[in-house]
Amino acid sequence: MDVTPIDPQCDLLLERVLPISVDAAWRAWTEPALLMQWFTPAPWKTVACELDLRPGGVFATVMQSPEGEQFPNTGCILAVSAPHLLIWTGALLPGFRPRTNTESATVPFLLTARIELAPHPEGVRYRATAIHADAAARTVHETMGFHAGWGAAADQLVALMMQR
Amino acid sequence: MDVTPIDPQCDLLLERVLPISVDAAWRAWTEPALLMQWFTPAPWKTVACELDLRPGGVFATVMQSPEGEQFPNTGCILAVSAPHLLIWTGALLPGFRPRTNTESATVPFLLTARIELAPHPEGVRYRATAIHADAAARTVHETMGFHAGWGAAADQLVALMMQR
Repeated sequence: MDVTPIDPQCDLLLERVLPISVDAAWRAWTEPALLMQWFTPAPWKTVACELDLRPGGVFATVMQSPEGEQFPNTGCILAVSAPHLLIWTGALLPGFRPRTNTESATVPFLLTARIELAPHPEGVRYRATAIHADAAARTVHETMGFHAGWGAAADQLVALMMQR
Repeated sequence: MDVTPIDPQCDLLLERVLPISVDAAWRAWTEPALLMQWFTPAPWKTVACELDLRPGGVFATVMQSPEGEQFPNTGCILAVSAPHLLIWTGALLPGFRPRTNTESATVPFLLTARIELAPHPEGVRYRATAIHADAAARTVHETMGFHAGWGAAADQLVALMMQR
C-alpha cells in the first residue's frame, strides 16, 4: 500500500511496526469497547466512545484526567477503508458540519488524524499522522508530547490486542 | 434516491426541479470551465476554479466583484458520488487539513455545501444544502441573500446547460 506523504512543516507522524495483525489494529481503532482500553495514555482514561464508521459519521470520545475531570471531544469521520485507512477530524462535527470559531478556539489546536495500516512481515506497519492547520499548531502539539503520548497509546493498543 | 434531512435550525436549503438532465447538472458542478460560467450571480464573476474530485481534493474558486476585487475561497471536497452527490467544505483545506482559527475568523461564516441530484420526470431534482455551525451562522448567510443568490446561480446553471 502506498503511504500518504506528510507535510513536515505542519504534520506529525508516528510510524511503527506493531507485532499484531492489520485486522487486530483495525479492530482496536474501530470498536469503541476496544478503543476505550488503549486510546489515552494511563493514568488518563477514555471513559466513553461513539463511532459511526462512515464519511460524515461521529468520532467522539470522552477523556478523563487522573483527577476525574472529563474532556469530551466530538469530531467527524472523513474516510473509512477497512482495514487500511481511517481519517477523522476535530474540525468538523458529525454530518460534516463546521464548528463555530468560538468552539474551535477552546482547544489548543484543531486536528485531523489519518491512520494507515499495512501488512508487514512482522505484523502491521502502523502510521498515525496528526495533520494541523499550520506549523504553530504542530509545534503546540509536539510540545504537549505528541510522540510520547501517541507512542504510549500504541504500546497500550499492542498490549491489549496481544492478549486477545 | 433518499434525500438527506436538513437541520432547519442551522441549515439552508434550495430545492428545485431544473429542466436539465442529472448528468448536465453534475457536469455544471464538476467541470471547472462550466462552473465558472454560472457559479456566481452576475455581475459578480467566478474568474478561477480548481477541482480535484475525490475526498480530500481541492474545491477552490476565485470570485470577482463588479469593481474587480477578487475573493479566493479554498476548500476541501468531502464526498463524491457521480452523478448524484457532491459535498465540500470551507472548514478544511485540501488533504482534510484544518484551517487556522485566524483564517476562519476572516469569513462571515464557515460553510459545508451538499449538492444532491436525483432524476425527476421533468429533469433533475436539485437540492443544495448550506450547512452551518449554528443558527447564528445560518442567519448571517440568510440575511446576506442565500435564497436569492443560490437561486440566481441555479438559473444561470440552467441557462448555460440548456444551450449545450
